[in-house]
Amino acid sequence: MVKRKVCIAVIGHGECSPELQETAASIGRCIAHHDAVLVCGGLGGVMEAAARGAKEAGGTTIGIIPGLRKADANPYIDHVIATGLGDARNLLVVRSADVVIALPGKYGTLSEISFALMAGIPVISVSSWAISDDIIQVADPIKAAQLAIEIASKKL
Amino acid sequence: MVKRKVCIAVIGHGECSPELQETAASIGRCIAHHDAVLVCGGLGGVMEAAARGAKEAGGTTIGIIPGLRKADANPYIDHVIATGLGDARNLLVVRSADVVIALPGKYGTLSEISFALMAGIPVISVSSWAISDDIIQVADPIKAAQLAIEIASKKL
Amino acid sequence: MVKRKVCIAVIGHGECSPELQETAASIGRCIAHHDAVLVCGGLGGVMEAAARGAKEAGGTTIGIIPGLRKADANPYIDHVIATGLGDARNLLVVRSADVVIALPGKYGTLSEISFALMAGIPVISVSSWAISDDIIQVADPIKAAQLAIEIASKKL
Amino acid sequence: MVKRKVCIAVIGHGECSPELQETAASIGRCIAHHDAVLVCGGLGGVMEAAARGAKEAGGTTIGIIPGLRKADANPYIDHVIATGLGDARNLLVVRSADVVIALPGKYGTLSEISFALMAGIPVISVSSWAISDDIIQVADPIKAAQLAIEIASKKL
Repeated sequence: MVKRKVCIAVIGHGECSPELQETAASIGRCIAHHDAVLVCGGLGGVMEAAARGAKEAGGTTIGIIPGLRKADANPYIDHVIATGLGDARNLLVVRSADVVIALPGKYGTLSEISFALMAGIPVISVSSWAISDDIIQVADPIKAAQLAIEIASKKL
Repeated sequence: MVKRKVCIAVIGHGECSPELQETAASIGRCIAHHDAVLVCGGLGGVMEAAARGAKEAGGTTIGIIPGLRKADANPYIDHVIATGLGDARNLLVVRSADVVIALPGKYGTLSEISFALMAGIPVISVSSWAISDDIIQVADPIKAAQLAIEIASKKL
Repeated sequence: MVKRKVCIAVIGHGECSPELQETAASIGRCIAHHDAVLVCGGLGGVMEAAARGAKEAGGTTIGIIPGLRKADANPYIDHVIATGLGDARNLLVVRSADVVIALPGKYGTLSEISFALMAGIPVISVSSWAISDDIIQVADPIKAAQLAIEIASKKL
Repeated sequence: MVKRKVCIAVIGHGECSPELQETAASIGRCIAHHDAVLVCGGLGGVMEAAARGAKEAGGTTIGIIPGLRKADANPYIDHVIATGLGDARNLLVVRSADVVIALPGKYGTLSEISFALMAGIPVISVSSWAISDDIIQVADPIKAAQLAIEIASKKL
């Protein structure tokens, strides 16, 4: 029998500044350092930077993409889930995670936060949407990643 | 060839107070008076009250339900779309509308607002989530319904 | 309370011969004559011809389309359900019907037949896939439509 | 950058005989021996046996489940994708694979074959549905697994 690893989703802008990319990458590295799996939307911006960080630290990455072509995933994804469901794939990204870390993003990110909260999956926001007390606000990205690991480990 | 009618979604709590039900019903009646079609999630609370209002005024109602059993729809739905997709059906409710009217609701309502804004579908909020300037805030439900009809008519 | 009408899905090729179009249209007309609602995938070929037939006979038509743009539906659709789910919308077409009539089609049609049979929705084939004894084979399209109405009426 | 591994789906009955389980397990072992990833529907029967075989040979397994609870996956799944989409998750199983191996199964299996063929993903049948010349028929499970690896390797 498998001892399933903790799985953390990182969500946010599909296109973003070098600063936000570095924040995402540092979270990805921290997730991998703790031997957790990273899941994301598999495309660019925050998704790519987080996956790059996780791979730099020797981790495992899953990308759940909107289209049918696995080649559309960013080059840091180990396992591509090709959905063909368009933006509806947002639901799957958060539902496959034990905890969600939200970085700044627009309505796609907000939809993911909404569906995580509907499903009772904890959401940690690092300067992202602050629309509910159910979202845990953590300013520092490393502390956010560590808290995510801690909460997720208790759930398993 | 068909002259397609305007279609307005009404979203909000699945369980709600008599006051909120009356608000939803008045919006449903107004939509039907203007010969527009009402689309909703097909279950209880705001969904049922809005559909009841629309039928009282002789209108047409569509309910897009999470499950597979058409009998689970509320009794004021003419056309039941049985999805079997669970909460993912939220996306379809707003995508099938020309304009969305949001009444108070929780994360399900927020997910619907998010997906409407992602798809560029106008959202009018009547005391619902005020998380973006892209949402049109209208306090009076009848004025909200009239504005929805007006905006939707321009889109067709 | 609404007395819900019987709803029949017609599925088959998205591009087809004039003969197959006439078959689909005759089924659509028969569905409308019996005051039943037609549901289909909303695009061309069998879907368009069946919807045209239903409208010629004064019926009501629902089109569940793969994309987000309601304008992509064929011109004989009263109510467009815009899913944005791509071919996954095939599931919704059959799940929203009380009975499915299958005309010749390829793997999309086969996927719809499979999902109808999974959900226990009766399938009547008019020269379509004959891959199971659970599918009712009827050579004549009018008799197929009449049988569909009959079976669906018993379910309500 | 990641060198993405070949990914093979194994589909078939959710409940099955010890013989069919052994067939599925031998395919899973062969997939893992070739350093390929196994993807399946994550539940019992063929899905569980194939995943067990892959884990016995030190491989990696992905399970795409219909529900929201990751604990519902069988105990041989490394990465659980919790969809909440019900049977619509069938589409994702085949779309995430480079090649599909079909063992005996009912309409769920048929729906997966249909969607694989729609998406142009090769399907190898081991005593499963023989409804099209587009499906490659291979009687021996090990030869089927080897052929799947060979075809998938050419695609990458």
